[in-house]
Amino acid sequence: MNGLKISHLSVKFKKKEVLQDISVTFQPQTIYGLLGRNGIGKTTLLSLIANRIFAQDGEITLDGHSVVDNDLALQRIYVMGERNLYPKNLKLVTILADTAGFYGGLDQAYAERLAQKFGLDLEQKYGQLSTGYRSIFKDIIALTVTADYILLDEPVLGLDANHRDMFYQELIDTYAKKPRTFIMSTHLIEEVANIITHAVILSAGKVILDEEVDEMMTKSYLVTGPEKEVTAYVEGLNVIGKEQLGRMTGYYVYDDLPEMRILPDTVYLEKMPLEKLFIYLTQQTTERKEG
Amino acid sequence: MNGLKISHLSVKFKKKEVLQDISVTFQPQTIYGLLGRNGIGKTTLLSLIANRIFAQDGEITLDGHSVVDNDLALQRIYVMGERNLYPKNLKLVTILADTAGFYGGLDQAYAERLAQKFGLDLEQKYGQLSTGYRSIFKDIIALTVTADYILLDEPVLGLDANHRDMFYQELIDTYAKKPRTFIMSTHLIEEVANIITHAVILSAGKVILDEEVDEMMTKSYLVTGPEKEVTAYVEGLNVIGKEQLGRMTGYYVYDDLPEMRILPDTVYLEKMPLEKLFIYLTQQTTERKEG
Repeated sequence: MNGLKISHLSVKFKKKEVLQDISVTFQPQTIYGLLGRNGIGKTTLLSLIANRIFAQDGEITLDGHSVVDNDLALQRIYVMGERNLYPKNLKLVTILADTAGFYGGLDQAYAERLAQKFGLDLEQKYGQLSTGYRSIFKDIIALTVTADYILLDEPVLGLDANHRDMFYQELIDTYAKKPRTFIMSTHLIEEVANIITHAVILSAGKVILDEEVDEMMTKSYLVTGPEKEVTAYVEGLNVIGKEQLGRMTGYYVYDDLPEMRILPDTVYLEKMPLEKLFIYLTQQTTERKEG
Repeated sequence: MNGLKISHLSVKFKKKEVLQDISVTFQPQTIYGLLGRNGIGKTTLLSLIANRIFAQDGEITLDGHSVVDNDLALQRIYVMGERNLYPKNLKLVTILADTAGFYGGLDQAYAERLAQKFGLDLEQKYGQLSTGYRSIFKDIIALTVTADYILLDEPVLGLDANHRDMFYQELIDTYAKKPRTFIMSTHLIEEVANIITHAVILSAGKVILDEEVDEMMTKSYLVTGPEKEVTAYVEGLNVIGKEQLGRMTGYYVYDDLPEMRILPDTVYLEKMPLEKLFIYLTQQTTERKEG
């Protein structure tokens, strides 16, 4: 019963089905990656959870209770959106105070420390911020607000490399001190591979993968070598991609490797990075849809 | 005389000096990375080149002629901005046609192929696009417009991993067919490390590095091992960062390595990624400024 549970959710905009019968449960105290191609419905899903739009079918529950018109539930879920929802002439300090009022509070001292660290003047108006600093400001709220489920849509959009490092480090630190659920939607998959413990991948309106990252990594391989030997080795396995380098063939495999099969001397096995896995898995479903 | 030359450029906003006496020359037919922290003045520099704002001091010339109020020069320089400069109710096809009119033309067939490839409907209005698709649309113009100097401000902002790969590949292809200068400002440094041939790094209002990427990489090392041995080895070298892992010490070195110095068996040398080099170089100047 515990957790943020999405059941059989479907959404259409005009006649286009954006989400088709999505079911996924976000457990307490876990850091999730919500991954998917541009325009695949990640932002729609976050808006549904935040009650900003409503689904034609299905439901969303928090610890067993529907979130629709449920203020108690909504106070426990904070959604940081990619869109700019704040009035441009509001000062950042005012937005912080308003947010603290609606949710169960906000760690003001920590927010000020973070603002200092990221070089953000909280006396500014929201409309004065660049893309990068808008992300930083929204990240500061997400890291300091009192909520059990915190959804971050593109938290590092426009951030430079140093600021991205700082954000990831703060996320890990605050999670260690007070474990709660973070659901991060991002396009920089390689950078969060060591932070998220669970990945949910959306493609073509469906959940195509919902798994522990550790588990995923033990099944993600690149097998290289001469065509004939490599092809024999991967026979019957779930091959999601193929690349060629001169005479050498590489297969991207997402599967448990067969223990009984002998690896020839000319064939090499290596780990596939999470981003490659994502690229091939989501390409596959897109092609299937079009074909 | 050839090239886009920035000489002793200084800009102040209110009393704050954003760019301080910047000098740098962008050569013909070269792919540049213009790198810097958030808010360091990259966008200001691009706006100056595009004649959208003006400098208090210094000048910008193209092949020896000032770009100020020089329509002939400005037609040869295309600046793709991070800000959204197009009216929201204009159709994408109309924007393409207008751009073709102002510059020396635009490869319409290639633009349509790219739109198809990226899944972008050109009959849409600009205001309907998401952050990612705004970037894609602006990238399509940048790749197809007839100009000798093309400046891209955050070309992959909001793009998913597959789209980023596609964009980099198209950039390399179109450059190979028709070499011209691309100046890319981006925060995803590691991803462009193999694409750019020359890097210009801005920090604290100044150009702190202006060098061929190949040259930079031959001077960028991480030296690891026991503290005593490592410290002895890097003595007198330009150490830009230090990290500790238990008893092991790592120094990030940006320097030519001393040929005469013997590397002890316990000390390891490896290449430093471009992003690490960037992080340490720009941290250093920021700290120097604050100190």
